[in-house]
Amino acid sequence: MNCLNKITVIGVGLIGGSFAKGIKQLGLAQQVHGFGHNQDNLELAVQLNVIDSFSLDAKSAMQGCDLVLLAVPLGAMQSVLEMIQPYLEEHTIITDAGSAKQSVIEAATTVFGSLPENFVPAHPIAGKEQSGVLAADETLYVDHRVIITPTEKSSDAAVLQVKALWQALGAKVEIMSASFHDEVFAATSHLPHLLAFALVELLNEHPELGNVFKYTAGGFRDFSRIASSDPTMWRDISVANSVAISKWLTEYRNYLDQMIPLVEQQDSEALYTLFATAKAARDEHIVKR
Amino acid sequence: MNCLNKITVIGVGLIGGSFAKGIKQLGLAQQVHGFGHNQDNLELAVQLNVIDSFSLDAKSAMQGCDLVLLAVPLGAMQSVLEMIQPYLEEHTIITDAGSAKQSVIEAATTVFGSLPENFVPAHPIAGKEQSGVLAADETLYVDHRVIITPTEKSSDAAVLQVKALWQALGAKVEIMSASFHDEVFAATSHLPHLLAFALVELLNEHPELGNVFKYTAGGFRDFSRIASSDPTMWRDISVANSVAISKWLTEYRNYLDQMIPLVEQQDSEALYTLFATAKAARDEHIVKR
Repeated sequence: MNCLNKITVIGVGLIGGSFAKGIKQLGLAQQVHGFGHNQDNLELAVQLNVIDSFSLDAKSAMQGCDLVLLAVPLGAMQSVLEMIQPYLEEHTIITDAGSAKQSVIEAATTVFGSLPENFVPAHPIAGKEQSGVLAADETLYVDHRVIITPTEKSSDAAVLQVKALWQALGAKVEIMSASFHDEVFAATSHLPHLLAFALVELLNEHPELGNVFKYTAGGFRDFSRIASSDPTMWRDISVANSVAISKWLTEYRNYLDQMIPLVEQQDSEALYTLFATAKAARDEHIVKR
Repeated sequence: MNCLNKITVIGVGLIGGSFAKGIKQLGLAQQVHGFGHNQDNLELAVQLNVIDSFSLDAKSAMQGCDLVLLAVPLGAMQSVLEMIQPYLEEHTIITDAGSAKQSVIEAATTVFGSLPENFVPAHPIAGKEQSGVLAADETLYVDHRVIITPTEKSSDAAVLQVKALWQALGAKVEIMSASFHDEVFAATSHLPHLLAFALVELLNEHPELGNVFKYTAGGFRDFSRIASSDPTMWRDISVANSVAISKWLTEYRNYLDQMIPLVEQQDSEALYTLFATAKAARDEHIVKR
């Protein structure tokens, strides 16, 4: 892979910072640059060797930039694109790390009028409990999936460049359409998050049970861990991917509608089959992998 | 606490074996006896110092027995009570470790006609990934809750004896009614288990998405861990506590009915409030404890 001249990361937190730190350590760019509105955070990122330099204005952030990664909340994508749009150079590749893809593409369509061929939406499937630049970790993406969802306009060269960078960081890159991405992640990630938030909040709204949480054990702790996720991020995802999420929430609700009579009628055979099939699927696809 | 002459554990697996091993190590009974139908398992339990001795017939298992713990699946409680009933001595305290309590009390009512004063239902809130006597661990109950749900007939002396044994094993004992127990654990344990089984099975039934499990990350792994639980145990619990479980499943389904329009209408304020309240409740009651 050619060494790039300058990479700019917008939003130097866990996701953007881990990308920046990995690129910097591997020497994949002459300059790893940060852009954001929080000077203290960007100074800290320099001290932590996550980035080489930073700027607080879009013009200098974009100057001579070969590739820009937007690692900002989904709700901020459009305003960040608007901010950088006047200063983008013709060759600059634009990519992002948002957990929903169609909404980012819509935002780009709004800002650019038509989609630039250097625009390559992507979604790294990684995270950890901690957030922020202090948690940035150059190995975060090793063996993790990164989904690239090229638009109809994305050039092969731009897609290859984005793919090569993620692969250099150890990620397993997959290409799919933005709509398939949003469907799959609505089912496998967004749905369970909303289900976990809903269960915790349902119990929280039953004060007649007392502090019911004190009777929970390890199973509940694990099940509900994702209900300790950042509410702003999940608000943004729910809004950005509302069509697919509400479809899957409805599918799940309908599934419960089938399950409730089995419990009411104590249909032990049907319940056993359901539980055994689910356990077999999880043991096969999640435990063993 | 007085040292008991003989304690019999019926079902020497993780739960019963951990109880037996703890009693034996603390010298709280002259003889820790096992009863079951699997001779190999009971011989292994002796080798592992989980029990002192065992029998394969109910008569010798109950002879001279001061306390018997039923650590068998909920679906087997009634038949085990029927098996030991002819041989129970007048002073023998009967307790159990079932995760639903009203169904065990109903089984006892059926078998004994009226409830014995030496019958003290209980539920230790503990478990681990492994099951079976090999996983038996005398520290399993340390700092874990054990819920005792005395019947109207349970004598104070019998309740105190059961309480003292669990406390000696390091457990935090709480007394509550069987109906409140079944309500609380339907909400905090049975409901999340059924929700996790349902999600895994819902995804499993959508082959048009391909192997969708490969796109799941750590959040899904944790959320769904309890869907790898024993299907027989969960069938038994679902049947035994069907009234409370179907009530809570319905409450949850109704909660989703309120949530779905918020996502459909992209009501970011309401969604933020829901997520932030749930996160605060979990951080307060689960993370900090």
